Amino acid sequence: MTLRIAEIFGPTIQGEGALIGEPTVFVRAGGCDYRCSWCDSLHAVDSAYRHDWAVMAPEQVMAEVRRLSGGRPLTVSISGGNPAIQDFAPVIAYGKAEGYRFACETQGSVSKPWFADLDTLVLSPKPPSSGETVDWKAFDQCLEAARGCGQAVMKIVIFDDEDYAWAKAAAERHPELPLYLQPGNPEVDPALPVDLSQATDRLLWLIEKVTGDGWFTPRVLPQLHVLVWGNKRGV
Amino acid sequence: MTLRIAEIFGPTIQGEGALIGEPTVFVRAGGCDYRCSWCDSLHAVDSAYRHDWAVMAPEQVMAEVRRLSGGRPLTVSISGGNPAIQDFAPVIAYGKAEGYRFACETQGSVSKPWFADLDTLVLSPKPPSSGETVDWKAFDQCLEAARGCGQAVMKIVIFDDEDYAWAKAAAERHPELPLYLQPGNPEVDPALPVDLSQATDRLLWLIEKVTGDGWFTPRVLPQLHVLVWGNKRGV
Repeated sequence: MTLRIAEIFGPTIQGEGALIGEPTVFVRAGGCDYRCSWCDSLHAVDSAYRHDWAVMAPEQVMAEVRRLSGGRPLTVSISGGNPAIQDFAPVIAYGKAEGYRFACETQGSVSKPWFADLDTLVLSPKPPSSGETVDWKAFDQCLEAARGCGQAVMKIVIFDDEDYAWAKAAAERHPELPLYLQPGNPEVDPALPVDLSQATDRLLWLIEKVTGDGWFTPRVLPQLHVLVWGNKRGV
Repeated sequence: MTLRIAEIFGPTIQGEGALIGEPTVFVRAGGCDYRCSWCDSLHAVDSAYRHDWAVMAPEQVMAEVRRLSGGRPLTVSISGGNPAIQDFAPVIAYGKAEGYRFACETQGSVSKPWFADLDTLVLSPKPPSSGETVDWKAFDQCLEAARGCGQAVMKIVIFDDEDYAWAKAAAERHPELPLYLQPGNPEVDPALPVDLSQATDRLLWLIEKVTGDGWFTPRVLPQLHVLVWGNKRGV
């Protein structure tokens, strides 16, 4: 059994959401059932890039994580693409036996039994600006599959007022999930620099939206890696 | 019974540490038993500013928090200065009765029974670059007083290699405390702008230090409010 892997990199810090700041090795799966208009990881999504993806056995994935981390257990974040279209159960089993912790980030369109083995499941349903439509039944199946995991949280990217209103409705649907909001990043070309002051302006816009509105449940966070590295890959 | 209050402001987001991104009203106490060389809140520390501090009854403090938050419960962060040299027990009692949650940030030099009533106690022992010396016995008394609180965490500001080595020793002393590291900010003049790229460079330096070292326990986070607002007060 093999996995399609777009990249494995780190250790670096988690740049967003519930584990922001946490030293992490990223395992980015290749392939996705979505095609968000503003996708910042097309190299792991668009099948035009599939010849760049490695075909690896689970043991090989963990060997690379072990090499990068010098054999010292840390958090491994399984992202993508949508990692839930593949079977990461063996990777998680091998890693947990050595003390590694596992987080997974997925949109919530496909559920997998191995969600229950995670320390953190980040479900990030995509708002209207993505051009995708959330299947809430599939999303709820993901939560069902994740029962017994360390924590399940929801993260929503916000580009505009419509996304913001949509996020509020999503939060009402799942008040039990800790919620993280992050401003959308329209500057996703890895060949171009990110304008720092524009990035912080987008964060400010979202902070003022949430606090002005008296909506005190979500945490509002930027993509730290974008502030530090721009759109550079592998950091 | 009255309190010396340097400022009450918000709602904004918590800019650093364990509650980063959390909508918060800040109650900044006036007065401090320390005088860190790089203090970024001298207006709440230096007694030269004491005539600017309000003298308020606990009911008045909560009334202002209530006004700012529109009566909707959120997290109230009690900071300073060192808030532990005053008695915030009544403020916390009034607020909790209305559903407000309380965090307190202190260096850990003075313990108070009301630490046990907090949702989050952030102890930030000061590294050598501060010019202060930590009294670990007093620090441990703070932890003892905080038994039963929601969570106690440690946050350390790092300016240089000496601070970094000191933080590692502090972490070994208290491995039970979740640890947050943040790069020091030498640009604390509220009249001057903060150089964003220098601020992100300082974060990058600390990330590379921690990950290059294989030290995977602490989370590494910036001061988000500095990235968004520079040294502006009241945000």
